Order: sequence, then C-alpha cells, then structure tokens
Amino acid sequence: MADVNPAQPFAPGSPRVLVAGATGFAGALAAHLIWRHPRLELTGVTGRSEVGRRLDELYPRYRVPLRVEQLDLDALVLDLDTGGRLDAAIVAYPHAAAAPTVAALRELGVRVVDLSADFRLASRATYEQWYGPHPRPDLLNEAVYGLSELHRAQIADAGIVANPGCYPTAAVLGLAPLARAGLIADVVIDAKQGISGAGRTFDETTHLSMAGENILPYRVASHRHTPEIEQQLGELDSALVDMPVQFQAHLVPLDQGELASCYVTPTRTVAPAELSELYAQAYTDEPFVELATVPPGTRDVLETNFCRVFAAADPHTGKLIVLSAIDNLWKGTSSQAVQNLNIMFGLPETEGLA
Amino acid sequence: MADVNPAQPFAPGSPRVLVAGATGFAGALAAHLIWRHPRLELTGVTGRSEVGRRLDELYPRYRVPLRVEQLDLDALVLDLDTGGRLDAAIVAYPHAAAAPTVAALRELGVRVVDLSADFRLASRATYEQWYGPHPRPDLLNEAVYGLSELHRAQIADAGIVANPGCYPTAAVLGLAPLARAGLIADVVIDAKQGISGAGRTFDETTHLSMAGENILPYRVASHRHTPEIEQQLGELDSALVDMPVQFQAHLVPLDQGELASCYVTPTRTVAPAELSELYAQAYTDEPFVELATVPPGTRDVLETNFCRVFAAADPHTGKLIVLSAIDNLWKGTSSQAVQNLNIMFGLPETEGLA
Amino acid sequence: MADVNPAQPFAPGSPRVLVAGATGFAGALAAHLIWRHPRLELTGVTGRSEVGRRLDELYPRYRVPLRVEQLDLDALVLDLDTGGRLDAAIVAYPHAAAAPTVAALRELGVRVVDLSADFRLASRATYEQWYGPHPRPDLLNEAVYGLSELHRAQIADAGIVANPGCYPTAAVLGLAPLARAGLIADVVIDAKQGISGAGRTFDETTHLSMAGENILPYRVASHRHTPEIEQQLGELDSALVDMPVQFQAHLVPLDQGELASCYVTPTRTVAPAELSELYAQAYTDEPFVELATVPPGTRDVLETNFCRVFAAADPHTGKLIVLSAIDNLWKGTSSQAVQNLNIMFGLPETEGLA
Amino acid sequence: MADVNPAQPFAPGSPRVLVAGATGFAGALAAHLIWRHPRLELTGVTGRSEVGRRLDELYPRYRVPLRVEQLDLDALVLDLDTGGRLDAAIVAYPHAAAAPTVAALRELGVRVVDLSADFRLASRATYEQWYGPHPRPDLLNEAVYGLSELHRAQIADAGIVANPGCYPTAAVLGLAPLARAGLIADVVIDAKQGISGAGRTFDETTHLSMAGENILPYRVASHRHTPEIEQQLGELDSALVDMPVQFQAHLVPLDQGELASCYVTPTRTVAPAELSELYAQAYTDEPFVELATVPPGTRDVLETNFCRVFAAADPHTGKLIVLSAIDNLWKGTSSQAVQNLNIMFGLPETEGLA
Repeated sequence: MADVNPAQPFAPGSPRVLVAGATGFAGALAAHLIWRHPRLELTGVTGRSEVGRRLDELYPRYRVPLRVEQLDLDALVLDLDTGGRLDAAIVAYPHAAAAPTVAALRELGVRVVDLSADFRLASRATYEQWYGPHPRPDLLNEAVYGLSELHRAQIADAGIVANPGCYPTAAVLGLAPLARAGLIADVVIDAKQGISGAGRTFDETTHLSMAGENILPYRVASHRHTPEIEQQLGELDSALVDMPVQFQAHLVPLDQGELASCYVTPTRTVAPAELSELYAQAYTDEPFVELATVPPGTRDVLETNFCRVFAAADPHTGKLIVLSAIDNLWKGTSSQAVQNLNIMFGLPETEGLA
Repeated sequence: MADVNPAQPFAPGSPRVLVAGATGFAGALAAHLIWRHPRLELTGVTGRSEVGRRLDELYPRYRVPLRVEQLDLDALVLDLDTGGRLDAAIVAYPHAAAAPTVAALRELGVRVVDLSADFRLASRATYEQWYGPHPRPDLLNEAVYGLSELHRAQIADAGIVANPGCYPTAAVLGLAPLARAGLIADVVIDAKQGISGAGRTFDETTHLSMAGENILPYRVASHRHTPEIEQQLGELDSALVDMPVQFQAHLVPLDQGELASCYVTPTRTVAPAELSELYAQAYTDEPFVELATVPPGTRDVLETNFCRVFAAADPHTGKLIVLSAIDNLWKGTSSQAVQNLNIMFGLPETEGLA
Repeated sequence: MADVNPAQPFAPGSPRVLVAGATGFAGALAAHLIWRHPRLELTGVTGRSEVGRRLDELYPRYRVPLRVEQLDLDALVLDLDTGGRLDAAIVAYPHAAAAPTVAALRELGVRVVDLSADFRLASRATYEQWYGPHPRPDLLNEAVYGLSELHRAQIADAGIVANPGCYPTAAVLGLAPLARAGLIADVVIDAKQGISGAGRTFDETTHLSMAGENILPYRVASHRHTPEIEQQLGELDSALVDMPVQFQAHLVPLDQGELASCYVTPTRTVAPAELSELYAQAYTDEPFVELATVPPGTRDVLETNFCRVFAAADPHTGKLIVLSAIDNLWKGTSSQAVQNLNIMFGLPETEGLA
Repeated sequence: MADVNPAQPFAPGSPRVLVAGATGFAGALAAHLIWRHPRLELTGVTGRSEVGRRLDELYPRYRVPLRVEQLDLDALVLDLDTGGRLDAAIVAYPHAAAAPTVAALRELGVRVVDLSADFRLASRATYEQWYGPHPRPDLLNEAVYGLSELHRAQIADAGIVANPGCYPTAAVLGLAPLARAGLIADVVIDAKQGISGAGRTFDETTHLSMAGENILPYRVASHRHTPEIEQQLGELDSALVDMPVQFQAHLVPLDQGELASCYVTPTRTVAPAELSELYAQAYTDEPFVELATVPPGTRDVLETNFCRVFAAADPHTGKLIVLSAIDNLWKGTSSQAVQNLNIMFGLPETEGLA
C-alpha cells in the first residue's frame, strides 16, 4: 500500500489551519476538507479524547493520516514565538467548552471559525436564556455570524466567525428573500435531519436498531436553534425582531441530510412570478445556492456545500411554502466552515469545495 | 415443511370476507390480517394482476396460502344464488377503479370497506375537483367515513365504509380534541411517511438507491388528502368548514411509519393542564389511541393498529403542537379496515388486532 | 388512553415465568412474547440496570406495562416458602454472569431457559478455551442444548435449557439433514446479521451513521459460535467430531435478520432429487422450518419463529449450498426460548408464536 | 443561481470522451467523473431512453448539465471527417447490446472502455455458455481485461478495454497475491453488495419496502461473474485453469458498497508473516489498493476508487480468509473505467480520482 491518499499539495504560503476537536463528526470532516484543500495547510488535529490515535483509524473514509494530539497552548505559544505560523483554527467543541479555547487562540492572533453556539447569538441575555452562563461574553462583539451568503463582507475581516447551526443555515437561506422583502408575517419551520445530526453520540437516538425504521420528533417547543433563526430574520426585516418562530426538529433514518420545510403566512398576497423573481435576484450569483425547479430531496445535495431551495405559493391557503435542503454535516457545518475560511483568506469561495 | 402457518381456526358462523385487489401492499396486508383473525373467514383473494400466483409467493411474510384469482362477479352471483355466503369485501383498488366494483358488490348485498378515495368525500364537487369525474356519485350518500374512533356508530350499520387515507387518519385523530373544543384558528400539517406509502410502485420514488439517504417532499400544495382532513375538521367544528388546511407530505427512508406534525394557531390561549385534560377525555377509553408522555416515534407503533398522540402548548409562540404517529399500512390503511369490519359485525373492536 | 394492550388473559394454572435481564434486546422481546402468550403468565421483569423504569418506556413497541425490578433471590425464597409459585425463568445475562443466577434459580426448583453461552457447550475445556473460566461447571451435565427441532425430547424434561446462539440456530438447522446423512466433508459458513445482533450496545458498531451504508466483517477467525456449531454437527455425525468449521460473521445495515450461507464439500456426489428428499424428510413435520423453493430473504421470516431453508447442489463445483434465514432476535433468541418453554411445559409448540 | 457547478476547466488538448448509455447508474457516474476530471473533456452523453432530458435532472447529485442525446454514428462520422475529434468512449450498455456499438466506435478509431460483459471473457465458448451468442466474437482478441492493477501495460495500448465486473474486481484483487504464489487449492467466495448493484431497475429487488430490512441471496450456483474470476485466477496461476470457483452473491440494504469474503483452502500451510509479506509486496506501490490492519467495512471505501483488503490465516481451520471491500459503482465500475482512461492516455493514474 502506497501512501494512499496524500493531501493535495497546497500552494506555498497557504494559510495554516488547526482543527481542534477533530474526533467528532464535524471536526473530522473539517480536517478532511482542509487536508484535501489545495490552498489550505492542515497543521494538526487535536481532540479531547482519542489522543494518540490516528484520525484515519477513527474515520477511515476521510483518510487524514495524522495522529490526534492534545491541544497544547503553551507549546503553541512557544512555536509562534520561534517563528512558527498558525493562521486559523476551526474549533469543534460543545457549547460553553468552546469559548475559552476560542479566546485563547484569539489572544495568539489566530483567527477562529467556531462550530459551537457560543458566539452565534449577539445578545448575551438570549444566549444565557437558552444555554446557561456565557464563559466569555466580552468576545461577543468581536464575533461575526458565519452564514456565508448573508455576511460575506464581515466574515472577510472577522477574528471570530460563529459558524451557524445546521437548521438555521437551511431555514435562513430558504427564508431570507422573503424576510428581506418584508413578506413574512408568521412562519412555521418543520425540519428533518439524518442521524449524523446527533453527532458521535452513542445512545438510543443513534443505535440503528432504534433510530432505524423510525421518525422521531425531539426537543418539542424548545430547540436551541430557534433564537438563532429569529435573530437572523430580525436582521433581515426589523419588523420580525420580536416575531417568535415556530421551529420543530425530527430525526429520520439516514446518515447525512437535512430539509427545512417552511410555511410562511405572508404579509400580503404574493404571485408566483414575483416569488420566482425574488429568489432569482437573491441567489442567481450565489455559487452554493441552487434554485430547484422541482421539490428538492436531500440526496440532491449529499456531500456537497450546496443549499437547494424551492419556493411555492399555495393558492389554496394563501401561504408560501419554502423547502430548503442541505447536507447537515457539509453546508450545515464543516464545508460552510471551509467556505468561511476561503472568504477570510481571500481565496476563491468555491476552492476545495467543488 | 408442514402446512406452516394455518389460519387460526375461525369461529363457526364467522363473517365471510373477500379481499379484492390483494396484490398491492394494502390488500395483501388486509388478507393477512383476516387470514389470522379468529372470527373472520377469508374466502378468497383477487387481483387485477398476478392472477394464478400464490399470495405467499408474492408476500412470503404474510403466509396466506391462497392463489390470486380474477374477480368474477357472475360466479359470485351464482354462488350466492345457490346458498353461498359472502358477508363483506375489502376493496383495495386505485381511486375511480374502485367505485364500480364497490357498486357491484353492494348490489349483491355484500358490505364493503373501500380502501380507495372514492367514497371518502361527501361532496361530489370536492371529489371531482381533486380526482376527476366520479364513477358512481349516486352511492356517495350511502358511504360512511371509516375513521373508527370518530364514526363508530354509523360504521356499525354501514353498507359502504370509506376507509380513510393514512394522512387524514393520523392528522384528524391528532387534531380532533382541539377541533371539537373550537380551539383551531389555523393549522399547518407537516407529514412524513415511509416508502411503503408509495405502494407496490416501481420507480424513482421507491428504488432504495434513490429513496435511501433522502428526504423528499412531494405534491407541494396539492396533496389529495387535504380535502379529506378539511371535511373531517369541518364536521367536528362548523367554524372550520371553510378553513383551508396547509398540508405537506414527505417521503423518508424507512418502510412503514407515518408522523403528522401539526402546528395549530389556537383561537385562545390554552394552558397545558387544559390541553392534557382535553386529550384524556377524548381518548381514555379508546383501545387504539395512546397518549404519549414523550414525543412519539413511529417505531413505537410499527405493525400495530395504534395511533400515538402527543400534544404540547408552546409558551414561546403561543401555538399548539400535536404529534401523531401511526403505521401507515396498519392503522393508516389495512388494520383500520379490519377494525371497521369488527365494528360492522359486532365483534370486539380489538379482535385479531392485539 | 385505555389500558392499551393488556396481556392476553392466560389460562388459569398457566406456568408462571420470570424474565431476568429484561432490559436488553433479547430479554425485552422474551418478556413481550410471554406477556402476550395465552398460556404463560409473566410474573415480573428484572434488570441489572434501569431498575424502577417501566419496560414500556424502554421498549414502547413491546407494551409490557411492568416496572423493571432488581432480582431479589431472598424475596423469591420467601415468596416460594409462603405458597408462591414460580415455574420457570428466562435468564438474559451476558456469559459468565448468567451461570450463578441460573444455579440459584435451579436450587429453588425453577426451570431455566438460559440465553447466554454458559451452558451451551458440553465440554468445560472447550468453553474455557473460548470464554474463560466457567463459573459453575458442575451444572454442565444438567443442561440441554435448546435447539428445539433437534433436542425436543430432552428439552421436555430439562431443568436448564441452554438456548442456542443465533448463528448456530440458522447454521445447524440448515446443515442438520446433510450431517445426519454423513454428507459433510468440509463446510464454510458465511453469516450476515442485522445490527440488533450487537444488542443494546452503544458504540461504533451500532451508530446508524457508522453501521448504516456499511458491510462489516467482524471477529475474523475467532467467533465464539464456532464451537457450538461444531458440537452440534459432531453429535449429528460422529465423523465430524473433529472437523473444524470455517465460520465468519458480518454486520449489515438492517435491524433484525440473519442469513447463514453454507458451502459444503460433500463426501460424495449428491443429486438434486436426493437433496430435496433429505430436507423434506427432515422438515416436513416441523412447524417452524420452511423449505423455500427460491432463495430465502431474511425479510420472509422477519418477526417470526420460522427458519427458512433452501438447499442446492452446484453442478459447476460439486459443492452443496445451503441458505438458512431466521430473525436473529426471534428464532435466533427469544421466540425459540418461548418455543422451548412450550415444549418444557407440554403446551402446543406453536402456542403464542403464530 | 449561478452556473452552479461548472466542470473543472480541463487542460487544453485533453482527450475527448463520450459516454454512451449515461442514463443508467454506471454511465451517469462515469459522466460525472469525466465532467469533473481536470484532463478529460466530456463531449456528450447519450442514452437509449430519456433522450432530451438533462442528466442533472435525472441525477441531480452528479451535476452534469448536458442533455441526453441519441447516439448518432452517422453524425459522428461526419464530425470526425470534418476535423472533429473523439478520442474515447465509455460504453455502458447491457451485455450483447454493447458489442455492436463498441465495434462501430472502433471502426472510427475511437478507443473504448466497455462496461458490459461482452469482451471480458477471452473464450468465446465460455461467453456463450453463460451469456448466449456473442455478437462480435471477431473482436475478442483485441480486448484487454481492464482490471487496472493486473493489466496496466496492455491497457495502456488497448483499443478495447473490457472493464471488469464489480465482483471480479473485489475478488481478484483480494486473491491475486495468493494465486500468483500458487497458494490456492480451492476457494469459496461469498459476496455481498448494496442495491445499486441491481442498477436503475425498478422491481421487487430494488423497492425499498422489499429490499430494505432484507438479506437476499440471488442467482444461486449460477452467477455470471464466476467465469470471469476463474479466468483471472487461471491467468495468475496455471494450476487454477480448471479449478471451479464457488461464487455466491447477496443483496443487502444499502446503496453502494461491496464485500467479497474469500475462504481459501491453501496448497500448503501459510504463516501469518508470510501472508503479510505477500500482500505487502503485491500492493505497497498500488495507489488504489489499501491493506487494512482491521477487517474492512465497505463504508471505508464509499465513493472512492479504493479497494481495501485484509488477509488472515485461520489457525483453527488452516484456511486463509481474504476480505476485499470496494464501492461497487466506483472501483467496481465507473471510477475504474476512469482509472483505465488515465492509463490509456498516459495521465497520472490517480488524476481526477483522489
């Protein structure tokens, strides 16, 4: 067996990127995407467990032939002091655990894409209502919400990019053209997701003999992605700042894939042609948003960074239906993080993601 | 190999039942359930295709050792004239094809449970708007809508029982307590279903390599189960007669299972205790409706006649969430047909279904 | 919600049965099958974990409305001393943990069906080679190997029935007619099984995002079911006492189902007609062995106590191919335990299993 | 939506390739792989059905924005006569249908990778025994068997490359080191494959409600890949020319993935160290063969051109066990076709496949 899958040789001078928390699903995929990226250099993978094991043993498919190390900030300081270079890190820790590490990396001048929820909500109060005490509220101002299509300019200059939750990614990309046009009076979002959404968690929700042949609603009336969606809609249309969003998530028996079905009560009647025009204007130039001409299945976007959107007006009810499909691990998490790195370092946005 | 799975010996004098259209998923399961039923006698299985083949070749799991015959009404007349007896038939044909056969069987005095949509809608106009010309509108008056829990008394005496669609079964059982109490101002129903819902259809929607690892919305803003749900809600609350229901269906990669997630804008604030009380009153004595204390997964009702319902008030939005899980082929179709036969012939309602 | 699924009322004087270890997949299914059995009374369910929880919370589908208790042998002694009655127990513990409990129950006169490997191998030396020290080798003599079709007479009188492993059940039922006829010179058994075979274990082998879309061979050249198969073949044909069996297991992404594909080098040429005759003689009167006329899929036996067998002579190679399909949790484990209880207590062998 | 997924710009002067039969699974994936290949130009996609439809409607995931055309040989002649260029074609037709088209393309000087069985067997007699009359036996001599790792030199110069069957690819790569060393006395190959192996066929074997939760052996003692494996083993070890191979295939419920479990009776005892050495020698320099240190799951090679091999000696039986995992659609079919194109046109063998 030859060295079977060397990383693509990256261009000299490429940004050097660390993945912290590479043993979970999101971090491992991020490491894979950077490893094969032609203009990013993967400097290492760290984990809070599985230290010493090779990542390609834990995730053979990803073929990243590096050992999992413990994150050693002292060693990193020393390295940087002696001429080493670390340009960016993807932090894939659980919420609350992420913020202190993000802070430490920022102090070293490392730019961070944080996959946790710690820096997604601009309001500390809202964060603490849904997640508990915030470890580093002082950094909230510095963070930019990393929904690439909506916040490209700020992401380009950001020190901390708060990578969005997977559900907000699908839902907000689906609803943004309507919100911007002031067309949303009320919205119900019913989301379905594959089991990878539960992460590398070993319990009743992920065991194939329990999750298989099942459709399982969870966190009824209490999903933490709700305020994230509300915040983004409120930014797009100030009339929506106080509109509570009805959001409900379900697990369905597949691995990767997520569909947000959005039912909008519009502020006024919207004709089909106007609807098409709105979405065309919003997304014609977006490399990773596809406007579907038939209802999109999640299989259409499997293992891609695409979000596939379909919008229709229902003449029977007067409501608008928006269906938005992504791969929850890719555009919903790790490939969007790479899209953000591309933006942050001035690379072509599709680099390494086609 | 002995005669491996004889039908349970049925009690003498048991109602004699024919299954017409036994080669599809619904008809085959109905034949299986009657074959093993201790107080119903399966007199034969007919099909429009596969004539001459044994049903236990087509569906080994169901172990019904009968050959598929062509439905021969002349022979049936002769048989009845010479002392034969046929008490009931389950007709499992596509819509429009069902009505003429139902009519012919009624003329012979046979009571029918029709699995098609032909007699579900009381209004001919509504039927024709969604399905096209009705073959036998003269029989619409005779038909009773066969949602067992709601129309038990009429089913007991009916000549034609229009077995409900699977989505209306789940949705209406979930919403009935709210409708009856006049609490529904508006409702969005997002339904998910396993691939058996597409029936014995061989195409892109059922091929495992296309339906697997997919979440697929279909018939956007145009599903024919919509008017059925509207009709039932309108019967429960006259204020809802003209309320259009937002209904959207999705295919997810499992075999049997269906979840209706219902988002209700209430006519007034409903406290959690009142909500619990409403559902307890409605379903405490129902043998086949279970009130779940946690959000129900469809696996909980797999291959049973149960409908498992969970209702919650969302303090964040003020809306009510009702989650209703069934097996689309069982309670959603064939076992509900047997439940209806039990009611029609004065048998214990759970007979053959426990 | 009414008492939704009462156990079938069991006949008065029915054997009283305890399930010890009811929180795992095998024990929970055993409890379900006894609960619905018309002539067995389920006296309780015990567990080494989840004590105090209702079994119908852990396994909603099984609808056994009993709380999990700790097994309290002292209380049991007291109860039996004061006129209580316990006729049998199904013990569903891991190997080595089972033997002491089986011994304690035997001392109280309770007959036991043990689902572990502790009493399957007649030879202590063989057991200890594959499993480590045997906790109660003194009881090995008392135990009967519980492959119902092969050892019915001894099972009827046994104090300890060692319920077979799932792979030996499928493989030995498939091979027995050939072994008995002295036709096996060598055999390769390639077995495939659904994820339920890994039990209620939460790890990489059962996570849907790892076990899904995978075919995984495991325990190469070292599966502990090997000596069990060898022992049974040796009993059927003394010429096979020292023949090592090549056995290899694989996990495939489904829940319940198991196929043993057996490739036999015969001791002499076997004509197709002779092969058919051999299997017909062996199984014509067996209520739970089906001779398939086409290669059997595991779906044909899903959630049944059937074993479906297909045998063919390959003219190209001269070998014999035997395909044997079961549901690993049913005939492979829990429903075979109930079949054995039926035999032990003189009930019709199919009672509660049709 | 921008032109969302342009083909990678291919280098000027790149070989121009047509895919004939692009509407089936194999042809569509081949078109996708060529479309994104940096040094191959996809000139068009043809089909015998679905003419006029866009390939990215039929297979959204593959994002090939070309319309399916009818293969028009006259137009092709004209085009070539007037300075057009077509260097190669992948022909993805059923057996017998492929040969005439391959012949026509050869007459125009186009080099062909044929995905059918038509040119895999060197012996016309063997072909006709398993497949019926051969349409163009005169071309058998010109064809090279396209197992890239075994026949690289001949492939480089070939006019017709007969791309191997998926099962022979996995089995022969697994067994080649043993065959070459003269170590195989007898072999049983038990293969398992996902449903994509049945192709874009709509019937009982592919319907998710029938193929799901199933393990299905098929073509017992009669699979047409048998002679292909025998031919290759015979080429590697002349002592095996007349050894019949026991080959059995099974469908399991996943999409893409294939495992060949090979049980070899060796000609002499083989020590584990010798076994490791043999495989290391054979595959250390192969870019697409991985030697696994633990039993390989098919998920490890999902959507890659890798073949992952594990070999072990079983001290209990004296047999050798070889487990060989591929993605049946990739290395088993379409990506191996691209690997062959790379070889044929002197490109780096991993180009477009990493």
